[in-house]
Amino acid sequence: MNTNPLLPMGKAAREAARILATTSSQRKNDLLLAMADGLLAAQESILAANAQDLADARAAGLADNLIDRMTITPQRLHSFAADVRKIAALPDPVGNEFDARVLPNGLRISRRRTPMGVLGLIYEARPNVTIDIAALALKTGNAAIMRGSKEIRRSNLAILQVIQAALTQVDLPQTAIQYIQDPDRALVGHLLKLHDYVDMIIPRGGAGLHRFCWENSTIPVITGGIGINHIYVDASADLEQALPIIHNAKTQRPSVCNALDTLLVHDSLAADFLPRVVRYLAAAGVRFRAAPAAMAIVGDHEAVTAAGPDDFDIEWLNLTLGLRLVPDLDTALEHIRVHGTSHSEAILTNNWQHAQRFLNEVDSAAVFVNASTRFNDGGQFGLGAEVAVSTQKLHARGPMGLQELTTYKWIVLGDGHVRA
Amino acid sequence: MNTNPLLPMGKAAREAARILATTSSQRKNDLLLAMADGLLAAQESILAANAQDLADARAAGLADNLIDRMTITPQRLHSFAADVRKIAALPDPVGNEFDARVLPNGLRISRRRTPMGVLGLIYEARPNVTIDIAALALKTGNAAIMRGSKEIRRSNLAILQVIQAALTQVDLPQTAIQYIQDPDRALVGHLLKLHDYVDMIIPRGGAGLHRFCWENSTIPVITGGIGINHIYVDASADLEQALPIIHNAKTQRPSVCNALDTLLVHDSLAADFLPRVVRYLAAAGVRFRAAPAAMAIVGDHEAVTAAGPDDFDIEWLNLTLGLRLVPDLDTALEHIRVHGTSHSEAILTNNWQHAQRFLNEVDSAAVFVNASTRFNDGGQFGLGAEVAVSTQKLHARGPMGLQELTTYKWIVLGDGHVRA
Repeated sequence: MNTNPLLPMGKAAREAARILATTSSQRKNDLLLAMADGLLAAQESILAANAQDLADARAAGLADNLIDRMTITPQRLHSFAADVRKIAALPDPVGNEFDARVLPNGLRISRRRTPMGVLGLIYEARPNVTIDIAALALKTGNAAIMRGSKEIRRSNLAILQVIQAALTQVDLPQTAIQYIQDPDRALVGHLLKLHDYVDMIIPRGGAGLHRFCWENSTIPVITGGIGINHIYVDASADLEQALPIIHNAKTQRPSVCNALDTLLVHDSLAADFLPRVVRYLAAAGVRFRAAPAAMAIVGDHEAVTAAGPDDFDIEWLNLTLGLRLVPDLDTALEHIRVHGTSHSEAILTNNWQHAQRFLNEVDSAAVFVNASTRFNDGGQFGLGAEVAVSTQKLHARGPMGLQELTTYKWIVLGDGHVRA
Repeated sequence: MNTNPLLPMGKAAREAARILATTSSQRKNDLLLAMADGLLAAQESILAANAQDLADARAAGLADNLIDRMTITPQRLHSFAADVRKIAALPDPVGNEFDARVLPNGLRISRRRTPMGVLGLIYEARPNVTIDIAALALKTGNAAIMRGSKEIRRSNLAILQVIQAALTQVDLPQTAIQYIQDPDRALVGHLLKLHDYVDMIIPRGGAGLHRFCWENSTIPVITGGIGINHIYVDASADLEQALPIIHNAKTQRPSVCNALDTLLVHDSLAADFLPRVVRYLAAAGVRFRAAPAAMAIVGDHEAVTAAGPDDFDIEWLNLTLGLRLVPDLDTALEHIRVHGTSHSEAILTNNWQHAQRFLNEVDSAAVFVNASTRFNDGGQFGLGAEVAVSTQKLHARGPMGLQELTTYKWIVLGDGHVRA
């Protein structure tokens, strides 16, 4: 049996997690505030490291949008630090007891929230993820082993220095947050097999990364973040509300997972409303892929082309929108079932029964009536922070906040109790 | 790419799950009552099938305790049917809404409990598991694909006929509960890869089965049921309470996962209490494996032998008990950390600080003060039923009842809301 080269890291993380598990909220908050201060104090070294990463990325010909996501500016660094202060100000879920009761035999039982233990994080080139996840993990008393993509390695290491200095400042072990520096890709596979020491894997990236994780991990994986999202405009919809909702869901931030991908419109709205949608959204730069019946109505608009065979199975992440006319709610529900990823779906309607059926029958992390899919977000839902948006059903579904980084243990208090 | 031979089964289960998800509690209860009636009505055919399984098992030389677990008697069948009626009488968690609130912008959000979808169950030779899990799955609106061990195949198929007849009786698809009949072991591996159709894998069996599942599954697995459990008797313990608690934890049902495996006793209790424990439990048939210091005190008792190097890392499942003297609470905590499986641990103490430290620092599914570890059970904790006892941290920890077979979706009700 080969030895996992990450074993020492795993052991150190487990040991740090043991200490973090009984660290007070006060000290965890002091730690986060020290991190926020440290980020600003280290601005020069962080920006210098980031500049080197950016130079290499440009030399390697990385796309502009990727380079933008990698870029740290003084303004962005201030906003990262502000986010850490916000996380410090949130209530700490650890230690909360729930479902407390006294059993007929007098045993007192409750469930008490505890940290998950050690988180494994695998993510793509966004330096803010390093800061965010470290702050969320530490706030909830978890240790973490992180692996960012190699393009952003120097920036991440500069940030890691700040985090580890803050840990030392509040007398906690630096091993609470560790970073896999070696760019060898095989180490990602090794992290996924570190089941004796890591309790949960959180991938942050595209569908390929998620798939790689759940195909190869012996540790539970939180999958999510992939949304092929739908809005169905029912015959009874308030069309004056519908236009801004569709516009918001598609254009407010097209590159994220809760943005709209496919618009399903009831046949009765084909003649008037469909052309209005096309005009209204085309003005915002939206380009359409229309199914045949919709094509017959709006195909002459320059922004509209015929949908290809796979166009309703793509998470666009840009200003492309699929268009399809449907004869009834059942067809809309079936389209969502066949093409959706169970992320975010909305119905726009004024029909009570249709709204109820949509809420009951659509099996997605978030189901909306008369609202934009863009609200499927931890911040918007009032969780205060967001770790990820889960599209799996185990443990957490939809936006994950601090509570979703915890587990619980049963506390049982007796007075000589034995089982009969 | 090879085609998974279980694909048709997966598709049928997913389709059945869609229907079950919106089936009323009333009809699900009618179904369970029809199953209970059907089990009694089919007594003759079930016992005949079981007799064939038992004859083969005896011919193959299976151990007596395994044969006993496989055996269905008229009395046991009545008790299986009674259990199904009990599950029918429990409240249905599906549809409950929680965390409901109105956001500052007027959006109404809540989390609504929904069925998990499709469960994959892999279990060893206990025919009651077939009935239990089918009833629990159907009560919570889930479909299931089941795979029992080949020794009990005929009994399981006779039970399956009853379940499927009951499904037909209440006009639900028979594919809600499917059974993998082919004894080919490769099919277990195929079930673990059916991620497009199965939402959760529940193994019920020994450590080897659990390990096989989480090593090979691309579907989230609930692991658990393996308990190397500890009781630490503190210097301040009420010794008159301690003896019956230890006796209960070890002997009341030694073959199950919440039974006691190792007793840690404070040094100060070595001379008087330790010999009392040995005498008291030896009279109940307990045999001891003692670490050196304990051996020096009680080694002359015929029930005591010296512990081998791995004896504190074994889940005994019989009347063997590990014995170790410890100089302080820290050593007890460290022993539990190194040798435990995070299942059930108890401290017997009258020292407030020691009790608090034990509750805070022991990272197990259930942590007890002055009570027997045998209470770590869904029925005992008042959950009404038990699917499994999880020792993992994701989703559910400790006893899993009906609620733990559900997930939730976010319900978001707007009135033209768009994100700013």
